[in-house]
Amino acid sequence: MFDMRKTAGVIALGAALTLSSVVGTGATGVANAEPAQPRSLYPASALVLTYGEGEDSGSTPVRRAVTLSCKPTPTGTHPTPDQACAELRSVDGAFRELTARTEPGRACTREWRPVTVTAQGVWDGRRVWYEHTFANPCFKNAVEGQVFDF
Amino acid sequence: MFDMRKTAGVIALGAALTLSSVVGTGATGVANAEPAQPRSLYPASALVLTYGEGEDSGSTPVRRAVTLSCKPTPTGTHPTPDQACAELRSVDGAFRELTARTEPGRACTREWRPVTVTAQGVWDGRRVWYEHTFANPCFKNAVEGQVFDF
Repeated sequence: MFDMRKTAGVIALGAALTLSSVVGTGATGVANAEPAQPRSLYPASALVLTYGEGEDSGSTPVRRAVTLSCKPTPTGTHPTPDQACAELRSVDGAFRELTARTEPGRACTREWRPVTVTAQGVWDGRRVWYEHTFANPCFKNAVEGQVFDF
Repeated sequence: MFDMRKTAGVIALGAALTLSSVVGTGATGVANAEPAQPRSLYPASALVLTYGEGEDSGSTPVRRAVTLSCKPTPTGTHPTPDQACAELRSVDGAFRELTARTEPGRACTREWRPVTVTAQGVWDGRRVWYEHTFANPCFKNAVEGQVFDF
C-alpha cells in the first residue's frame, strides 16, 4: 500500500569498527590487573533513537534523539517507554518489522521530502544499527506503534 | 605513564550509513504530506555507553550497556548521570579526552586481557561514535571520571 520508502536496514557494525591501532608504549606498574565484575544478570538493552530530515543518517542533522532502556524496567527520555519496549519485545528487536507496519487506510502524497530514523545501541545483548528513510513525514507518521513516535 | 592502550577513536558515521537502496513502489494515496514538528528547543544529547571484554567492539560481546541523556536534565540508566554529563560538558563531548585521563599513581600490569568501551548516539546534535580498548581492566579502572564507570 504505502511502500514508497527508502530502506537501509540493519548493518552489522563489525566492519566499521575495526579502525584501531595499537599505541601500547608499555607501563612500569606492578599492581595486578583487576577482574571485571559482571554487574548485571540480564542482557543489556539500551538504545538511542533519532529522527532527522534528510535521506540518510550520514548527511542528515539530528532533529530529535531519545534514549530507551527496556531492562530491568522500561525507561528513558522516550515519551512512552513502556509501549515502545513492549513493541520491541513483540518483534524481538527487529526494527524493520516495526517500520513496515502502517496504519490501514492512511494515504500519503508521493512528494520526496525524506525523513530518516535510526536506532542504535544494544538490544538483548546484541549490538544493533537500524536506519530507515521515509519518502516524507506522512509515511513516517503512518507507521503503527510508538517506537519511532517521539 | 599508563599508555598501554589500543585506541580506535572517533569515527565519522557517514561512510557506514549509506548502504541504502530505493524501494519505492509508488503510492496511490492523496492526502498531504504532513510537516515535521520541531519538538525540542535544544540540540539533542542521547547516548548509549557499552563495556565488553575483547579487543574491539565488532567482536566483543556487550557485557554492560547504559543510556545517558544530558538535556534538559541528566538522566539515564547510567549510575551517576549528573557527574557523567558534567564531565562530558567539560570536554564538549570529546570522549577521547576522558579516556586519556588516568588517576595519578595508579599502577597496572601489562597483561593483555583487553576490554573495550564504546559511546554512540548524539552529543549536542552531532552523531558520535567512540571506541577505546584498554590492555586490561586495570587500565580501564585507572581512568579518572565516571562516564565509563558503570
